[in-house]
Amino acid sequence: MRRPLAWPLAAALGAALLATGAGAATLDGAALEQAAMRAAAGSYREWVELLAMPNDANVPADIQKNAAWLVQAFARRGFNARELPNEGKPMVYAELKAPAAAGAAPRKTVLFYMHFDGQSVTPSQWAQRSPWEAVLKARQADGKWEALPLEHLYGERVDPEWRLFARSSSDDKGPIVMFLAAVDALKAAGAEPAVDIKVLLDSEEEKGSPSLGKVIGQNLALLRNDGMVIFDGPMHQSNRPTLVFGNRGVLLVKLKVFGAGQELHSGHYGNYSANPAQRLASLLASMKDEEGRVTIPGYYSPVRLDDEARRIMSAVPDDEAALRRRLGIAAAERVGANYQEAMQYPSLNVRGMAAGDVGAKARTVVPSSALAEIDIRTVPETSPEYLFARLKEHVQKQGYHLVEGEPSAEERARYPKLASLSAGEVSASSSAARTPLDAPVSRWLQQAMQSTYGQAPVQIRMMGGTVPTGAAVQALQSPFVIVPLVNADNNQHSYDENMRLGNYRDGIRTVMGILQTPYR
Amino acid sequence: MRRPLAWPLAAALGAALLATGAGAATLDGAALEQAAMRAAAGSYREWVELLAMPNDANVPADIQKNAAWLVQAFARRGFNARELPNEGKPMVYAELKAPAAAGAAPRKTVLFYMHFDGQSVTPSQWAQRSPWEAVLKARQADGKWEALPLEHLYGERVDPEWRLFARSSSDDKGPIVMFLAAVDALKAAGAEPAVDIKVLLDSEEEKGSPSLGKVIGQNLALLRNDGMVIFDGPMHQSNRPTLVFGNRGVLLVKLKVFGAGQELHSGHYGNYSANPAQRLASLLASMKDEEGRVTIPGYYSPVRLDDEARRIMSAVPDDEAALRRRLGIAAAERVGANYQEAMQYPSLNVRGMAAGDVGAKARTVVPSSALAEIDIRTVPETSPEYLFARLKEHVQKQGYHLVEGEPSAEERARYPKLASLSAGEVSASSSAARTPLDAPVSRWLQQAMQSTYGQAPVQIRMMGGTVPTGAAVQALQSPFVIVPLVNADNNQHSYDENMRLGNYRDGIRTVMGILQTPYR
Repeated sequence: MRRPLAWPLAAALGAALLATGAGAATLDGAALEQAAMRAAAGSYREWVELLAMPNDANVPADIQKNAAWLVQAFARRGFNARELPNEGKPMVYAELKAPAAAGAAPRKTVLFYMHFDGQSVTPSQWAQRSPWEAVLKARQADGKWEALPLEHLYGERVDPEWRLFARSSSDDKGPIVMFLAAVDALKAAGAEPAVDIKVLLDSEEEKGSPSLGKVIGQNLALLRNDGMVIFDGPMHQSNRPTLVFGNRGVLLVKLKVFGAGQELHSGHYGNYSANPAQRLASLLASMKDEEGRVTIPGYYSPVRLDDEARRIMSAVPDDEAALRRRLGIAAAERVGANYQEAMQYPSLNVRGMAAGDVGAKARTVVPSSALAEIDIRTVPETSPEYLFARLKEHVQKQGYHLVEGEPSAEERARYPKLASLSAGEVSASSSAARTPLDAPVSRWLQQAMQSTYGQAPVQIRMMGGTVPTGAAVQALQSPFVIVPLVNADNNQHSYDENMRLGNYRDGIRTVMGILQTPYR
Repeated sequence: MRRPLAWPLAAALGAALLATGAGAATLDGAALEQAAMRAAAGSYREWVELLAMPNDANVPADIQKNAAWLVQAFARRGFNARELPNEGKPMVYAELKAPAAAGAAPRKTVLFYMHFDGQSVTPSQWAQRSPWEAVLKARQADGKWEALPLEHLYGERVDPEWRLFARSSSDDKGPIVMFLAAVDALKAAGAEPAVDIKVLLDSEEEKGSPSLGKVIGQNLALLRNDGMVIFDGPMHQSNRPTLVFGNRGVLLVKLKVFGAGQELHSGHYGNYSANPAQRLASLLASMKDEEGRVTIPGYYSPVRLDDEARRIMSAVPDDEAALRRRLGIAAAERVGANYQEAMQYPSLNVRGMAAGDVGAKARTVVPSSALAEIDIRTVPETSPEYLFARLKEHVQKQGYHLVEGEPSAEERARYPKLASLSAGEVSASSSAARTPLDAPVSRWLQQAMQSTYGQAPVQIRMMGGTVPTGAAVQALQSPFVIVPLVNADNNQHSYDENMRLGNYRDGIRTVMGILQTPYR
């Protein structure tokens, strides 16, 4: 299935690449697995070093520090690497091309996308001193995670079930270091990539990649490609090699219900002045049924699933009983007949809710307002504009007069039910997208997985999360496939984010397999 | 209506009192009003001084400082005053008795209850540097409050519409200083109280007076009385002299709904793992209808209002249109036919609600739990135990399995809907209570108000708020009437608490009128 390809040796003095000519090895089977394991061992220190740099995109200085480190890391491996300016939060670009063999068809160019920023953290929630000091942990017989000396990571006997805990260990610095390790491993084996490599490292993915479309637009020729591979997101929970052909988009919405002009004494006005927390509760309750299905008219109706889509979904080896156990829930919602089907529909999720105070600061008041922070996951058939319009109609139909900002005295006097409803910016980065499963880039990756692991990958028609494919797809007009590499139970976006070391090794193996497989 | 009474002069050296004998003046009409105004002017510095002492009952040192100040203030006026020990948060007791005239019937003893602790504050919410530095303010033409130099308060021309802003300016340090000023004014006029005076100043009222029953129990003989007068709470919104014959109780409840074992990525698990904020919303929504009426079976049913009760309620000169304007709401809930009727029923108020994070810290997660802090205002017909049992039944009927603390793995695996529901301590202090309108103490106060103001007071069968009458009523077996002295729009329990200076003066007049009126 594979033909030998030449591997360019990095010039001793930096970015220029020298071709060695033809005839290098490819790795398969046990050799590939062994090479990936050795590459993993050789890369742990680099991973820990990268994780030590805080990477909240709200802090440009931190992003700059990460970007500089990454440019150096790619340049050391012979990539032509540099920062792409982005108003103080640079992205990183790197490329590695082999000279075309005389007479051969031009090689395909693949753009590999990852991101190096991370979600904001609340350090006090973490079971370790700092989310920026990686901690190696082993699960004990009682299910609890116990820290090991970090030196164990650098030793000879690394257990694949151990995990490294740190912000971005899995989302998405882990995959970046795995990618670097895969490049090192191929080079060490004298093997050569079968495609020309472009790498784009986003600096604001966790903020919804607000600038990705713009940066791509400023570098269109540089980034042109024949297909995009996105290393982000969790693998299928079976932990089998996974390809993902689509992702939901995301729209952030704020819904605020107003009560009296100020907090009121709950004794003197409880039973008289409507409680906005109670009203927000009723309003949210009116949006979903007891099974978690959105009941807002028209919310799901554009989504139609045909037999082929249902076949792909039913082939996914989901163990939903295990999933529910892992999540700690006795029953799932019934948006779809199964997990995969549920992800084909847009969601409506209360990500935060607040009224008055709770805990020690709680006072006996009727709060003056109540806020729900909502995220809506969109699908290609239901645009953010479409869903927001349905939501707004619904709120108005419940008797609410919608205001901008705070209601005026006139509005207070006139309308018994007052609320504000606002949507975050809808950018291409937060759009839903899907690539056909029979597109050339899809076929290439299906083949790479088959030959690397000897079996067909799990194929996910649509993942529930959002990756900023939309901006890239729109700007570059490239098809894309997501290749998730990290364990599903990695706690990304929350505290105690972690990465399983077995996944780290297999991820390197997957990247090596992809880089070796010809793309026709 | 009144007979002259002797006024005891305070002994120069402290607690012992000397009777002057018989024959002192009483004040009425304009003379009483003038005397109250002079007394007000003479007391403002003392008021500001008292307000400068933080008084959150969570801080025993602050309570001790206030108590010491108050003992001195009463002792300076000839009262036998001292602290009543209460585990570091002393209450204050003071008494002033006239020697019985030979042959006369023994005088009645009245216990005047006030409290010197205040609600917790969030200083950043206040429109002044500190809630503990009183600020004098005048309302401008545009309705906004503007600060005046505090010196204006000590000048000759004090506008009754000015207000003093500080924590406890109205709730309830204002009434304490008004009481002291009334005593000074009577003394200055050579008039004498018609009753023997006992004063009890609570140190933990805003925490629900958890220790009041115990402290009274330890001092039963000391506190014995023929009737209690409680100077607390806001006057009727007409700002007419007001008597209140009952108050609702309060029960604090926490309702927590559990989702998955930890926060989940809202993309990967939105539409699959039930959102506890959404579920809490549905649960709260199931408890009330759109008009604010509690729909939990049996919640209101013990309350029966007869014709006499409805007559008293309809005689209250409520201007509900003005009330709604003041609150900034277009329509009231419909628990009762009017405001007074609404207060005859128990309430169910969401005083605080929280799930996930909101604002800058909001993340795209499915929260792992959602919390509602609820306060239930009880009435004499519906005990806290009764209402909590109805609430618990209702939550269980919605399919919830109730756990103590956090659910176990077994409970998570077994029950699709998990919640915890807990009630705060139900003490006598937080109980509802009501005195018949034709009880002797009621008749005495009705007459005092009639002769002081030349008209019948507004009579409130039941106020919405809670004062710790229950503990005193149960322990002392005394009838009680609440005599509120402060403006209804005083923002008590919230930020920018304030007191109208016209109410401050009239409050002194009311106290003087009460002290002068014979209680038979």
